[in-house]
Amino acid sequence: MINTVNKSHIRVAQNASGRAMNVPVYHIKGKRPGPKVYIQSSIHGAEVQGNVVIYHLIQWLQNMPISGEIILVPNCNPVGTNIKAGEYTLGRFDPVNGTNWNRGYYYDASEVAEFAKTVTSEESVVSVKQRFRNHWRQAIETKLASPWGLGLAQQLNLRLQQMAVDADYVLDLHNGPVSTRHIYIPEYAKASATLFNFPHCIFIPNVFAGALDEATFCPWWTLTDLLNERDKRQVDFGVEAFTLEMGSQEVIDFDEGEIDATSILSYLTAKGLLPESQLEPANMTRLGVNLSDYKTLFTQWGGMVQYCAKPGQHVKEGELLAKVLNIDELDNEQGSVDITAPCDLIPMLHFPSASVLSGTQLYKCFTNYVTITEKS
Amino acid sequence: MINTVNKSHIRVAQNASGRAMNVPVYHIKGKRPGPKVYIQSSIHGAEVQGNVVIYHLIQWLQNMPISGEIILVPNCNPVGTNIKAGEYTLGRFDPVNGTNWNRGYYYDASEVAEFAKTVTSEESVVSVKQRFRNHWRQAIETKLASPWGLGLAQQLNLRLQQMAVDADYVLDLHNGPVSTRHIYIPEYAKASATLFNFPHCIFIPNVFAGALDEATFCPWWTLTDLLNERDKRQVDFGVEAFTLEMGSQEVIDFDEGEIDATSILSYLTAKGLLPESQLEPANMTRLGVNLSDYKTLFTQWGGMVQYCAKPGQHVKEGELLAKVLNIDELDNEQGSVDITAPCDLIPMLHFPSASVLSGTQLYKCFTNYVTITEKS
Amino acid sequence: MINTVNKSHIRVAQNASGRAMNVPVYHIKGKRPGPKVYIQSSIHGAEVQGNVVIYHLIQWLQNMPISGEIILVPNCNPVGTNIKAGEYTLGRFDPVNGTNWNRGYYYDASEVAEFAKTVTSEESVVSVKQRFRNHWRQAIETKLASPWGLGLAQQLNLRLQQMAVDADYVLDLHNGPVSTRHIYIPEYAKASATLFNFPHCIFIPNVFAGALDEATFCPWWTLTDLLNERDKRQVDFGVEAFTLEMGSQEVIDFDEGEIDATSILSYLTAKGLLPESQLEPANMTRLGVNLSDYKTLFTQWGGMVQYCAKPGQHVKEGELLAKVLNIDELDNEQGSVDITAPCDLIPMLHFPSASVLSGTQLYKCFTNYVTITEKS
Amino acid sequence: MINTVNKSHIRVAQNASGRAMNVPVYHIKGKRPGPKVYIQSSIHGAEVQGNVVIYHLIQWLQNMPISGEIILVPNCNPVGTNIKAGEYTLGRFDPVNGTNWNRGYYYDASEVAEFAKTVTSEESVVSVKQRFRNHWRQAIETKLASPWGLGLAQQLNLRLQQMAVDADYVLDLHNGPVSTRHIYIPEYAKASATLFNFPHCIFIPNVFAGALDEATFCPWWTLTDLLNERDKRQVDFGVEAFTLEMGSQEVIDFDEGEIDATSILSYLTAKGLLPESQLEPANMTRLGVNLSDYKTLFTQWGGMVQYCAKPGQHVKEGELLAKVLNIDELDNEQGSVDITAPCDLIPMLHFPSASVLSGTQLYKCFTNYVTITEKS
Repeated sequence: MINTVNKSHIRVAQNASGRAMNVPVYHIKGKRPGPKVYIQSSIHGAEVQGNVVIYHLIQWLQNMPISGEIILVPNCNPVGTNIKAGEYTLGRFDPVNGTNWNRGYYYDASEVAEFAKTVTSEESVVSVKQRFRNHWRQAIETKLASPWGLGLAQQLNLRLQQMAVDADYVLDLHNGPVSTRHIYIPEYAKASATLFNFPHCIFIPNVFAGALDEATFCPWWTLTDLLNERDKRQVDFGVEAFTLEMGSQEVIDFDEGEIDATSILSYLTAKGLLPESQLEPANMTRLGVNLSDYKTLFTQWGGMVQYCAKPGQHVKEGELLAKVLNIDELDNEQGSVDITAPCDLIPMLHFPSASVLSGTQLYKCFTNYVTITEKS
Repeated sequence: MINTVNKSHIRVAQNASGRAMNVPVYHIKGKRPGPKVYIQSSIHGAEVQGNVVIYHLIQWLQNMPISGEIILVPNCNPVGTNIKAGEYTLGRFDPVNGTNWNRGYYYDASEVAEFAKTVTSEESVVSVKQRFRNHWRQAIETKLASPWGLGLAQQLNLRLQQMAVDADYVLDLHNGPVSTRHIYIPEYAKASATLFNFPHCIFIPNVFAGALDEATFCPWWTLTDLLNERDKRQVDFGVEAFTLEMGSQEVIDFDEGEIDATSILSYLTAKGLLPESQLEPANMTRLGVNLSDYKTLFTQWGGMVQYCAKPGQHVKEGELLAKVLNIDELDNEQGSVDITAPCDLIPMLHFPSASVLSGTQLYKCFTNYVTITEKS
Repeated sequence: MINTVNKSHIRVAQNASGRAMNVPVYHIKGKRPGPKVYIQSSIHGAEVQGNVVIYHLIQWLQNMPISGEIILVPNCNPVGTNIKAGEYTLGRFDPVNGTNWNRGYYYDASEVAEFAKTVTSEESVVSVKQRFRNHWRQAIETKLASPWGLGLAQQLNLRLQQMAVDADYVLDLHNGPVSTRHIYIPEYAKASATLFNFPHCIFIPNVFAGALDEATFCPWWTLTDLLNERDKRQVDFGVEAFTLEMGSQEVIDFDEGEIDATSILSYLTAKGLLPESQLEPANMTRLGVNLSDYKTLFTQWGGMVQYCAKPGQHVKEGELLAKVLNIDELDNEQGSVDITAPCDLIPMLHFPSASVLSGTQLYKCFTNYVTITEKS
Repeated sequence: MINTVNKSHIRVAQNASGRAMNVPVYHIKGKRPGPKVYIQSSIHGAEVQGNVVIYHLIQWLQNMPISGEIILVPNCNPVGTNIKAGEYTLGRFDPVNGTNWNRGYYYDASEVAEFAKTVTSEESVVSVKQRFRNHWRQAIETKLASPWGLGLAQQLNLRLQQMAVDADYVLDLHNGPVSTRHIYIPEYAKASATLFNFPHCIFIPNVFAGALDEATFCPWWTLTDLLNERDKRQVDFGVEAFTLEMGSQEVIDFDEGEIDATSILSYLTAKGLLPESQLEPANMTRLGVNLSDYKTLFTQWGGMVQYCAKPGQHVKEGELLAKVLNIDELDNEQGSVDITAPCDLIPMLHFPSASVLSGTQLYKCFTNYVTITEKS
């Protein structure tokens, strides 16, 4: 072993039996200084493949020279993982109140604006970075100490965010329902799209909707914009955050996990964490789309659906996406209805059950996508 | 019968068997002209008492002279009503994705601003009102016709909103978990607090979070403010919308329903709908609170809870609210933990189950409340 | 403190995060010999009042002289307690497969018959009792060691049964949905009906359906019958087991818990466990019914129900039990349907939600009940 | 069209909104007399592929000469189909009480014994068959008319059974969780194993556990045995019933449905229903197993599972079946646990989620299986 893994547990909740619910935290500190990385998986309880990816990362990172340090938190939401409803896992939201487990991280644009006022045009990037981190950590602590308490999902999110607040690179490992690999990339870090081995990249703007990647990059992006505009500087804090969607939920696969672990190591290599690693990003076609062109197709019919178009498949306008069985018309030509593509598209994921009500999200699709080149 | 009830059904969804899910619409049109009223119940599937209130209203309104017309839509969310999870009803959110059934109504502040530009300072209130309704109805229709479709909850909300968009008075009938009667009142319509027989009134600002009452009053309130500021007018469109919380979920009671139906009739009488009604608001103490003083108390412990303070009870700072049993310490003095009031308060509602995780919303409470007088 | 409480934990399951799920076991051993008692609560996760009863029992028993020993296991099913579905607890059955948590205890009539062959007509009751317990304990262990494994509910049940197998008196603490106090008593132990303070007693035959009380008394009852018939003996092993239904689920109440704890102490006093206790059963009317006269009333209508008859109320044939609201007929006399009593009856419990499908169990009722006298 | 399809709907339940829940019934009557067939699908709400199979059967049967008649009932359990819990369908049991939707059909061994007494040794098979059917139909009607009502699942089952009671051949179309094709065949009808195109056959004894196939064959099998033993006859009523497991739940596939529809038509051809059909059973290897050798493997670990052995795959004793990830030991060699085959086996199905508690049914497996030959 080249590196020691420091393993601890943090308490994120207490269940109805009064028992602590703990999350394992693996901390690997390199022998040389360098950037900090935070990686977590399974904030949505049924999206479990990231745990296998972290398993491979930990096994490998123990034997690689590291400049910097890496915190890995598998199965970061033990509440979500353990809510079974039938044979499946009801892991995307709190079953008590419907709160999405990935919407309660902290961000406050006015706090950034206030902080910006304390920065002079002479202050070094390193100094600003350190002060801003302290400021943000304090804000999260204050939030956690709210005198009337906080909701479960928000408490969980904030406790995880406390560990991510120091990181330069934050990776949140997710899965789609039935899904092909895709990754969310902040527009200002577009250049990193070619550092991962993801064939599909979604570029997202500086908008906060509660998720960890947004909660990580929005403060830095906003601060950067404020300072650069005000002071005509070109500061770059170098903080990046991504949400990686690594295939389908409710499934783990150790071999597939090696592929994604390799992709992450290639990113970390490019960022200087792994000085002796020779890993390079794969030579592959990567397609990119703006978030506004990443479209959700809802069904207007309730019924039973065959998902004919598979995730990752290129579908032309008018081609068949899905067929809906109509159990009341099995004796005539209305026994099934075709749903076709409203434009050229690539489905990233589809709903995981054949049985749908009207208004169910059938597919999420790339439209108006472009090929990403190294220089994008 | 003095009035005829026109009964129809609208289709709001299609289930996984491909069957239409319909909602009953009762339309009572008075012999004389007057305001329009829209009343719905059970958008949250487990909050069923409003259906009984509507039952009494319909039975009574058939025999009262009416100036204007009233649309009543009981059980307006058949999806929510029919999702049983165990013996109870999982009615507050879509079980597929966690979407609160009362968060998908339409509002767009920029649309109001655009519309305001078309209003001249000479245009009559009646004319503006009619044009604005047409404009809003059209916007909802456009939304419903989205080429990629819409989510189930939003579709349901918009179809209901289409019926409410013409109304002068909109009442959305809800229940709390274990709850005493309280009502949400927009600040600009504070004077209506004394027209209902609700002992507890929450005054809410001009902020849209997706609910029907907000979707109803935000456009008019915003338009009013824009026009009055710009043109130094004092236009008043007279549109009001309320969310009425009429006791506890999962329960119906015909006798209790008469009380709430009477309260609503007293409001309609005051608004001129019921020219021969002698009903007057009850002579009672009404307490009011600003939304920012309506506090949620979350538990920091998981465990089993006795709710000692009852909804409606006045509790002093430091007095006992709840006790949490600690099953691992039943043999010593830590066998239970006391949760006390952080300030003087009145609980409106508490969580309906003894078994709670940490971060569960135990109580919602009035703090800093005041007594409402007629002239408030 | 007169007695020491020995507190330990046993592991009954492992959750999807790989964490042990433990159950607390409180063991109080008196200074003098005497019978063994086993008391557990919350095998159905939402039936939590028994945990409070055990709390009071432990607090009191620490200070009372005891002849014998008592094992108390609160919250014995941590899986069931922690499955929230909406605000409530889905605690009666495994959410994965529907298995009732109280149906997997061990019993095998042929094992009893085999064992009976090993008993000679001269063997003492004490000796038979000891050998039979060992035999049964071994059979449970063999079952738990099944080479292909066992289902979760059955594993949980068997691990609890291992602690109960030595006991002379077994009490399983439950709650009904919305319920008044009632108790299940094996017919051969009818005399114990007047030792508890339960107003309603259900006498059950020597039939095994999987529950703990049956799994406890069926072996002894069957063995007794076999030996007494074969050898014309009058052996009496003195083993009794009861299921106590102590009010409504989803609620805990510390004051109510004192009442039930007192009732249990009065039983234990009568059985000689508490030599210095003066507690006597309450002087009260107790009604008894045979299991075949304990009737379930199912609704033929789906709809919203007001439960007019309350648990414990005496209802005459033809009197109103419940009203069903019919949301499609609110404008005419079919707006509600009356459900009346098919015969004279006393409801013990009713369904806890107003919203029911057809075929829902509305009420469980005493019919043909009789007053129990001391000499019954 | 050669044959007309008579389409009707029967009402099987009423939901909480008071609305009827109907099931479509397709009745195809041939121009010539012959046997009666009853086919239903989706009694378990998530097992939907049978609906597609019925779609193909109806489309084809309209154009084939038929001797006899066929009733087809797709989506026979609209309650189960429409209970979504998260994105999946909670379709195997009633969410209110855990009752398996396929356990409430009617059978009563003592009724068969009573009926047998009314049969003389001279009565013709045709006469006995007709009288027995009438007797059974009447018994089901009496059950349905129970004065205190019946539970929802049982009501549904009995209303379906009323349509099946006249049939000579009953096919109940199911799916497994993640599953390969297999079929349940009563031992006395073993010869029919080679008439379907199912590679895996499970032979089941004359034991009733509540399912439709058992409820269909147990009466006839029992009656046959009674009469043949008593009268030394060789009566054969020719009634057969099967449960067909046609792949995985939560999925429909129109192409796969043609395969299964063909298999069913080949059975019907062999039974004389389709006089002009040339369809013959496929020339394929069929493996058979006695029910006692069809084993369920439960996991003793909770955690996240990769299902390495696929349904249908031949696995040798000691070979890898599954790997369980251990999130607390990702930094050492205990990061995953191997689960191996306890003997030579073929998995038929595995659990559909990676996240399992201890005691979860991981696999169901053929052991001690044999190759079925035509003459078996």
